[in-house]
Amino acid sequence: MAGTVTVPGANVPSTPLLKDELDIVIPTIRNLDFLEMWRPFFQPYHLIIVQDGDPTKTIKVPEGFDYELYNRNDINRILGPKASCISFKDSACRCFGYMVSKKKYIYTIDDDCFVAKDPSGKDINALEQHIKNLLSPSTPFFFNTLYDPYRDGADFVRGYPFSLREGAHTAVSHGLWLNIPDYDAPTQLVKPKERNERYVDAVMTIPKGTLFPMCGMNLAFDRDLIGPAMYFGLMGDGQPIGRYDDMWAGWCVKVICDHLSLGVKTGLPYIWHSKASNPFVNLKKEYKGIFWQEDIIPFFQNVTIPKECDTVQKCYIYLSGQVKEKLGKIDPYFVKLADAMVTWIEAWDELNPTAAAANGKAKEERLIQQQLL
Amino acid sequence: MAGTVTVPGANVPSTPLLKDELDIVIPTIRNLDFLEMWRPFFQPYHLIIVQDGDPTKTIKVPEGFDYELYNRNDINRILGPKASCISFKDSACRCFGYMVSKKKYIYTIDDDCFVAKDPSGKDINALEQHIKNLLSPSTPFFFNTLYDPYRDGADFVRGYPFSLREGAHTAVSHGLWLNIPDYDAPTQLVKPKERNERYVDAVMTIPKGTLFPMCGMNLAFDRDLIGPAMYFGLMGDGQPIGRYDDMWAGWCVKVICDHLSLGVKTGLPYIWHSKASNPFVNLKKEYKGIFWQEDIIPFFQNVTIPKECDTVQKCYIYLSGQVKEKLGKIDPYFVKLADAMVTWIEAWDELNPTAAAANGKAKEERLIQQQLL
Repeated sequence: MAGTVTVPGANVPSTPLLKDELDIVIPTIRNLDFLEMWRPFFQPYHLIIVQDGDPTKTIKVPEGFDYELYNRNDINRILGPKASCISFKDSACRCFGYMVSKKKYIYTIDDDCFVAKDPSGKDINALEQHIKNLLSPSTPFFFNTLYDPYRDGADFVRGYPFSLREGAHTAVSHGLWLNIPDYDAPTQLVKPKERNERYVDAVMTIPKGTLFPMCGMNLAFDRDLIGPAMYFGLMGDGQPIGRYDDMWAGWCVKVICDHLSLGVKTGLPYIWHSKASNPFVNLKKEYKGIFWQEDIIPFFQNVTIPKECDTVQKCYIYLSGQVKEKLGKIDPYFVKLADAMVTWIEAWDELNPTAAAANGKAKEERLIQQQLL
Repeated sequence: MAGTVTVPGANVPSTPLLKDELDIVIPTIRNLDFLEMWRPFFQPYHLIIVQDGDPTKTIKVPEGFDYELYNRNDINRILGPKASCISFKDSACRCFGYMVSKKKYIYTIDDDCFVAKDPSGKDINALEQHIKNLLSPSTPFFFNTLYDPYRDGADFVRGYPFSLREGAHTAVSHGLWLNIPDYDAPTQLVKPKERNERYVDAVMTIPKGTLFPMCGMNLAFDRDLIGPAMYFGLMGDGQPIGRYDDMWAGWCVKVICDHLSLGVKTGLPYIWHSKASNPFVNLKKEYKGIFWQEDIIPFFQNVTIPKECDTVQKCYIYLSGQVKEKLGKIDPYFVKLADAMVTWIEAWDELNPTAAAANGKAKEERLIQQQLL
């Protein structure tokens, strides 16, 4: 790229998309210098920073960003006893940001993720791509071999039923990572030098009935459509596992999206993931998850949410009951997690009373659950 | 690409992969000049040419290719009354080539498909990529967000169950097309100028339980694993529809692969599809299929093959019974098609007696079907 001149902000659309309808949620334990690189893309948006760990530490945010910051003391003050559902000393705490947001859309990103370049060398505006993904339909009911049929230059191929071409509302946009791939500890240990250098120029819908490993590093979603299911579970301090927060959310989200006929996309945009976390530390956090997931995946593959569950909250409360009943046998942790799932919904409805009223309050939801069990 | 020198055959591996285990099947009505362009890649392999239409016409094959050619007279002579299951005046006749092959693998390509270039300008050896796809496992049971985990530089991501990392045997490799996309007549009419210019550098498994539109233009499969299900149906002369031959095969193949835990991949390799067929002619061929498929897709989405069906033949015979029963109500064509499916299996077993003996003959299969219905 020698000899080319980069004009800062050259890729920014003149009016940022969904400027007043999207919050960027960032969990962190350190100063947010990484935002400098994102300034051309993020500065127009409101940030919700969830400070993990020691609340007495001051997190520096570069000047010019519009943000609110919550530390553990804030979470405890706002949620009271219900704060128990929010993880401590784990990036799972980010889901508190989803709960306090008042916007329709959320984008969440890790603070070790930088701006990636596309194959032409141009900076990728990840947020803009996520918004495009969320604002165009998904195709969960039938596979389109030319990938996203709504993209310029593409369409539905021969043999794609016309009745399915309107697609479904998109609830989730899962972005990918160049450089450090999102590997588990064993794979990190075996392949310490592997880097993801392949730019796959595609966005696709994950078909109905198929689970996927949802990574929280570069993720956007429609809060109105799926927000209450985006709970990142109990991880980190005082819990037997870590690094399964986003996975847990992803499995719950996917079965609920399938039940409610909502779409989940994966693919573009890429971010540049700068540093691999320590595989030894990761192994310690993950090892229970590595064998538990052998039971968790079949559980989620086989769970059937009853028809009566017609809101995300009702689906989620139903799932929590199933988790307690079916996964509780594996380890008492899942009983605690199932209770935290209920607390999460109660807290969500408390902080989002309008949505809660529309959707039916948690109490009523639990009644439904009792009738269904 | 001005100024670059192309060395013919530069991309050919020194020993062609599976040289004695793969046949290339080409349906055609014209001289096979298109093979000149494929010479560096195809010449080491045996070709099976299925001549469509007028059997008195002579098809010229460029010198140096090893081939056998079958016209309608040959098909009638070899299959006798069972030749009724092979379509006439339609490229669906290609499936006769699958039946007479004695090899483990088949690659089939249309005669208007040329060698495409990858983004670096290099000629794509489509056959080599298909073989790689077929020889490496598929991942139908869980979605890997970094696409093919067996490819160099990729792996399974965090959260992918370890018990599923061996994957499944790959039965089908579905390749794509640059330039003219495989659109139906209505889409061709609406977007006459659309060209596929996007090279998506990915191979992926189509998840279990998800149907896809399988195009026969650039397709490879493992004959031993799925051959008897690769029937391209009754199309063209004397039939009410056309251009659904590969789609029909794809739906049958996918539900049988799902039942037998076999994998179906799509993505790379690309070929260059040179010319769009006439959309008005296509509309006439397709229009019944366009509304029938609204019932056919739900039929295939809901069909459950019984456990007892443990061979492709048994699955296929079971499917034929279901087609007669469920789709026969839509149009008498499906009753005829269901019968042709049975004839196809009988003919397959006759021409492939060893496989037939191993799998249980058609008669026994029909007995099973009767017991199941």
